[in-house]
Amino acid sequence: MAHTPGIRAARKQQTRQALLDAALRLLEQQSLSSLGLREVTRETGIAPAAFYRHFPDVAQLGVALVHESFASLHAMLSAIRAEAAGSDEVIDRTVDVIAAHVRERRGHFQFIARERHGGVALVRAAIAEELDAFTRDLVGDLAPLPELSEWSDDDLRMLGELYVNLALLTASALLDAGPDDAEAERRVTDSARRQLSLIAAGRRHWPDPPRSPRPRRETP
Amino acid sequence: MAHTPGIRAARKQQTRQALLDAALRLLEQQSLSSLGLREVTRETGIAPAAFYRHFPDVAQLGVALVHESFASLHAMLSAIRAEAAGSDEVIDRTVDVIAAHVRERRGHFQFIARERHGGVALVRAAIAEELDAFTRDLVGDLAPLPELSEWSDDDLRMLGELYVNLALLTASALLDAGPDDAEAERRVTDSARRQLSLIAAGRRHWPDPPRSPRPRRETP
Repeated sequence: MAHTPGIRAARKQQTRQALLDAALRLLEQQSLSSLGLREVTRETGIAPAAFYRHFPDVAQLGVALVHESFASLHAMLSAIRAEAAGSDEVIDRTVDVIAAHVRERRGHFQFIARERHGGVALVRAAIAEELDAFTRDLVGDLAPLPELSEWSDDDLRMLGELYVNLALLTASALLDAGPDDAEAERRVTDSARRQLSLIAAGRRHWPDPPRSPRPRRETP
Repeated sequence: MAHTPGIRAARKQQTRQALLDAALRLLEQQSLSSLGLREVTRETGIAPAAFYRHFPDVAQLGVALVHESFASLHAMLSAIRAEAAGSDEVIDRTVDVIAAHVRERRGHFQFIARERHGGVALVRAAIAEELDAFTRDLVGDLAPLPELSEWSDDDLRMLGELYVNLALLTASALLDAGPDDAEAERRVTDSARRQLSLIAAGRRHWPDPPRSPRPRRETP
């Protein structure tokens, strides 16, 4: 037991990763709640009992996949945070970054999109927590912007949630469009750009009517 | 066979409905891709073989549930179409209608939210088709509005998709908030109102900068 702990730890880590990779492959065609432990070990090429050295159950493997997926999406999420500036160039770049990541990390996106409202409560909670943490970071980026200086915390939080949701919806729509349909992908990214541009316009003109003149309607 | 076709048809319809109801109950705790035919017939109290008199497989039962869910959501969707007018009163009413329907039709909402990106392709396609038809109706309502008269078809389509997605996201967030947490529900509906109000502001000021003076930036 004391001999080669380094090698043993590395091997254990390898098997753990093989289980995660196998599960992600199997989940391309099914939901986590229908994934069996034996299916995963068979796909990995290890004995079913060996599973428990890595995870107490399939739901906990699912939670590990949530963290892995969000780690892999981190580059994308950072680019979305940069969208905070709200100019049209940033909008175009943000949508491109989402599209590129969906292409490269299809499995991770699919897993998150599917299990966000899926049948395993533990995994739903882990996804909600990751999204919440990310929304908080995004709100931290938005808060110091001069144009948003008069926005309340609730308003900033709402804007952050809107961006995160639109990013996820765009990713989901790209997944539905399939990896090989360039025309469908173009339709989705085009719609995402228009939506971000509409929200940018709303940001610049909110509340509407503003505190200054231009009285179109009484503010309650 | 020729004796009492009316009664027989009614009974057959009853069993079909019992299968749908049983499946919806079972799907509260799992995804469609893990739902077994025998589970559904056991819950319904009929023999497994009798299932095939009503549906060729569980996926097709899922498609029937999609249509049933959308039929039950129709009242809500009509209220969202009325949101087209975009005044703050309509926004408040729309959010109330969504919240009320989620409370009453929790099972149907949960089913749609879960299976929209779920593991059964046939059901995903049926949901996409229903959402698409609804978005087209909504765009038909938006198109004649004077304030949107200069919007292109693609822009109107984008706005319709944005409303439908926000309605679904709000419904999903209400499901996550749980049926008994009034404070969490209030947070969700409050955020939805703010988002709709931001989009209403964006609508009134889009494209931004407008064709008229106020040159903040060159349009490309």
